[in-house]
Amino acid sequence: MKKATFVLAPDSFKESMTAKEVCNAMEKGLRKIFPEANYIHVPMADGGEGTTQSLIDATDGQMYHLNVTGPLGTTVEASYGIMGNGEIAVIEMASASGIQFVTQETKNPLVTTTYGTGELIRACLDKGIKKIILGIGGSSTNDGGAGMAEALGARFYDAAGNTLPRGGGALGQLYKIDISGLDSRLSQVDIQVACDVTNPLCGEQGASAIFGPQKGATPEMVAHLDSSLAHYAGVIRAQLGKEVAITPGAGAAGGLGAGLMAFTQCTLRKGIDIVVEYSGLCDKLAGADFCFTGEGRIDYQTKFGKTPYGVAHSAKAEGVPVIAVSGCVGDDVEALYDEGIDTIFGIIPRADNIEALLKDGPLNMERTCENIARLLKTALDN
Amino acid sequence: MKKATFVLAPDSFKESMTAKEVCNAMEKGLRKIFPEANYIHVPMADGGEGTTQSLIDATDGQMYHLNVTGPLGTTVEASYGIMGNGEIAVIEMASASGIQFVTQETKNPLVTTTYGTGELIRACLDKGIKKIILGIGGSSTNDGGAGMAEALGARFYDAAGNTLPRGGGALGQLYKIDISGLDSRLSQVDIQVACDVTNPLCGEQGASAIFGPQKGATPEMVAHLDSSLAHYAGVIRAQLGKEVAITPGAGAAGGLGAGLMAFTQCTLRKGIDIVVEYSGLCDKLAGADFCFTGEGRIDYQTKFGKTPYGVAHSAKAEGVPVIAVSGCVGDDVEALYDEGIDTIFGIIPRADNIEALLKDGPLNMERTCENIARLLKTALDN
Repeated sequence: MKKATFVLAPDSFKESMTAKEVCNAMEKGLRKIFPEANYIHVPMADGGEGTTQSLIDATDGQMYHLNVTGPLGTTVEASYGIMGNGEIAVIEMASASGIQFVTQETKNPLVTTTYGTGELIRACLDKGIKKIILGIGGSSTNDGGAGMAEALGARFYDAAGNTLPRGGGALGQLYKIDISGLDSRLSQVDIQVACDVTNPLCGEQGASAIFGPQKGATPEMVAHLDSSLAHYAGVIRAQLGKEVAITPGAGAAGGLGAGLMAFTQCTLRKGIDIVVEYSGLCDKLAGADFCFTGEGRIDYQTKFGKTPYGVAHSAKAEGVPVIAVSGCVGDDVEALYDEGIDTIFGIIPRADNIEALLKDGPLNMERTCENIARLLKTALDN
Repeated sequence: MKKATFVLAPDSFKESMTAKEVCNAMEKGLRKIFPEANYIHVPMADGGEGTTQSLIDATDGQMYHLNVTGPLGTTVEASYGIMGNGEIAVIEMASASGIQFVTQETKNPLVTTTYGTGELIRACLDKGIKKIILGIGGSSTNDGGAGMAEALGARFYDAAGNTLPRGGGALGQLYKIDISGLDSRLSQVDIQVACDVTNPLCGEQGASAIFGPQKGATPEMVAHLDSSLAHYAGVIRAQLGKEVAITPGAGAAGGLGAGLMAFTQCTLRKGIDIVVEYSGLCDKLAGADFCFTGEGRIDYQTKFGKTPYGVAHSAKAEGVPVIAVSGCVGDDVEALYDEGIDTIFGIIPRADNIEALLKDGPLNMERTCENIARLLKTALDN
């Protein structure tokens, strides 16, 4: 083999390694056998947790931390990134409004708010950013994005002219939306929303019914939230002239999808497609000999838009073979062979407890990739 | 690649698969990618548990079951095999006299006997066998092989002319060995003893000191057994004219090594060397493209004579690359790369309990080998 080029494009391994750390471990193992090869690191993500870190790492960008309003109204530390070109921000809504900020005792989708997500967007506007990649997974909220809009200057009133309390539970009282104070810079900003669900805002497949329970909604709460969001969509339709009730994706992140559609210039796309585009993966794959990808767990669900799926499709377009390496090889991975993933290896060396396996992730990834390289070399030399 | 030939030469995976079952799972996975290839199954072993099964399976031989005297004197069901050529028997001493027949409560190396092992040998003589492969691992005994010899016609008396009770604890009373009744067919039989230890019969490195404690010997028992075996060796030296006290391997299996030297025509060899020879592995490797091996656990100790080590050395002599696949990839496997193992893969797909992993062994082996084949094909096509 001529001087080989390996593109390393894994997702993060949750609770074990960032995507960049996976890249490093992969290279360390491969380099033992192919010391002269080119190694191109493309830390990946699929719009979910780790997307900011990966896109920052992939482009030598910078992470920023700031205090914002958490989902329960208390202050939390959140973060966003600005990619290496200085022009594109990356936000995960969960960083400000995620489910990790509520406990079994405090979770209450009637009151949780996306206000902090709006504050992160405002922080990007303050930096002159014109394009934002926004991952909306992992939310604790069911407020239709009203909190996000409020943080950016929108005002929500009841029939008596009082400001509505935050949270989806109050939206049934919404009488008037005032967008006169909405941050004018928003109209100049393109928000690329990483959204893998197509749920509408309301109804049986809506935000409240499908995602409410995992945020703590009882059946009674689900019914109340669903009718509140339907009312909210009606007010938006009447006063802002936008249809957000039935648009696919409107129900994502407790209706944050709908709020983004109502108050910002946004495009909803599959998270992996956004990351593939902005990581520059395709250019980096051109002429490569092998592409390595992976994620903490790989299974048949991977083909519904997770990182190895997206990487494999990009690699196939360039004619590059794809080797997936995963912490957990789940059920029916055979379904992935047809999706461009040529081969799949697990990294677990032995029966052990999950904590030890997560901790040993880098070593196990390194050893596995060394042995994959050994097999490649054996085959190529044969 | 021309029509490929894969030699599949794994050990058994303890508590999960026999070596033959490993071969079957390997082929099943590989065949999905290389349906036209030749698959040569060589179920292997290293002289330890599973050796009889593997050599029977490797040669289409037959297994025989019979009741014998267990280590505690009660009847146990034991087995031995006759290889496909009908001329070579394979016995594991543990089948008749193994540690699995005693419990925490009943283990007592003062009384446990190898009598049943002698009965297995006698059964082979009755079938006209002239060559026996005898694996001696996993013993519960410390009787210097006196029980084995007794089953074959030797008699052991104390100074008063009484027959000694069985077990190593009585050997200190040995006054006279009578071999006039020893089965005369023994002199025509070549016993190939699979023995990986070099311990002498007595002393600090002897059978009692090193292996006695794991069979239940207290420090006092160790001292008593050690002096008893020393006395036994002295009587053998004086009355049979054979030196068995210091010969390397005499201390194997509670001194069964010494007993075999005293009463039979035997050769002690590394177990893996015996299995390599009688499985016909080298002939089968000639002209093969890849050799797969493996064992339940692979680690740096593998290089001290375990199956993948022996297979790798044989394969290297034929210039065949070696791929090892294991249920557990242990510490410092890097040490094996220099021993002819080209690459090593684990088969565990995820963190799970050991029972489930053992049960899923065949499926995990199949999936892993399919993915190895996928990687090979990708590399070969590239």
